[in-house]
Amino acid sequence: MQTAEKTCEGFLSELAAKVPAPGGGGAAALAGALGAALGSMVANYTIGKKKYAAVEEDVKGLLCRAEELRRSLLSQVDADAAAFEPLSRAYAIPKEDPGREAVMEERLWNAAAVPMDILRLACEAVEIHSELLEKGSTMVLSDVGTGAALCRAAIEGALLNVKVNTGGMADKQRAAALEKEAQTLADKYGARATEIYKTVLGRYA
Amino acid sequence: MQTAEKTCEGFLSELAAKVPAPGGGGAAALAGALGAALGSMVANYTIGKKKYAAVEEDVKGLLCRAEELRRSLLSQVDADAAAFEPLSRAYAIPKEDPGREAVMEERLWNAAAVPMDILRLACEAVEIHSELLEKGSTMVLSDVGTGAALCRAAIEGALLNVKVNTGGMADKQRAAALEKEAQTLADKYGARATEIYKTVLGRYA
Repeated sequence: MQTAEKTCEGFLSELAAKVPAPGGGGAAALAGALGAALGSMVANYTIGKKKYAAVEEDVKGLLCRAEELRRSLLSQVDADAAAFEPLSRAYAIPKEDPGREAVMEERLWNAAAVPMDILRLACEAVEIHSELLEKGSTMVLSDVGTGAALCRAAIEGALLNVKVNTGGMADKQRAAALEKEAQTLADKYGARATEIYKTVLGRYA
Repeated sequence: MQTAEKTCEGFLSELAAKVPAPGGGGAAALAGALGAALGSMVANYTIGKKKYAAVEEDVKGLLCRAEELRRSLLSQVDADAAAFEPLSRAYAIPKEDPGREAVMEERLWNAAAVPMDILRLACEAVEIHSELLEKGSTMVLSDVGTGAALCRAAIEGALLNVKVNTGGMADKQRAAALEKEAQTLADKYGARATEIYKTVLGRYA
């Protein structure tokens, strides 16, 4: 069953259980989807209000992107599980098998690619909140702050799940390049999300 | 329908929609439930392993607490919606109505109490990850880091949602006391969660 169709309780129970997936990567993707959904909510409460007529077209564009991001992030929960399963089978190949390293390498690479996608998508969701901080209805400003905090958690979880996989790769140079790309994105957009959160919190002081 | 029984897609769509609830408070509670679930997962992968026999009883205790926290946090999504609905009706009372202030005050207080509970529960979940960092299986160490990041997002979202309500209260002294309690907890456990995350990330360097 796809995550989209699972109940919230069912998904949480699977996450808690001793099963290979969903794990931290899937939880990060779902947190990102929650963050993107709050972006949609803020946009939905802004569109149609006279006070925000001047930015309405921009906010409609943000809504469209937030909807797309929510769908993509939710589908990454399943992509993460799908990439992990062949990797967990590769771990079971006897260490003396000469074909093991090549199989492991390919599956580690596939398993790292999913949290890398989750990371990129969560960074895009931070950009949306960044713009909503300027253009969104102040009635739902707190949801911009909460959304940014959720996206940062998604970014942080995704970064860890990239590194879990790159750490085991034989091609150290290729692994280091991917780690660097992930860390650079996480630093930049994590800091931006913190800034958004602090700005919002400051407005409720 | 209770959130537990909603599909993941259904919940996310409601969060994104122009409806009063769920909003940021519910999203924070669900992020906390994801964080607690990862705590359960780490405990489940630790229990029964020879290498961790010396801490097995402690980890069983942590599992029990994490399971309880997950259930409580999930039920807070509905508690948040239930407290917001009467508040949104109070906002509709004409401003010249002499009874408005007392009604508003009571409902603001009830609406603030839920994110305050979410905040406390998410702080407890951070404590669990703090202990799992020492006692949990290193095979699932990244899930401790992701769990801590999710709990911090829950704390931050909950703090904002306390302040959304305290900001409108007439009894400024009582409001300030609650805000201070929330901010103190958020500062302490937010910092602890960051420390856990950074420690875990450092181990994958």
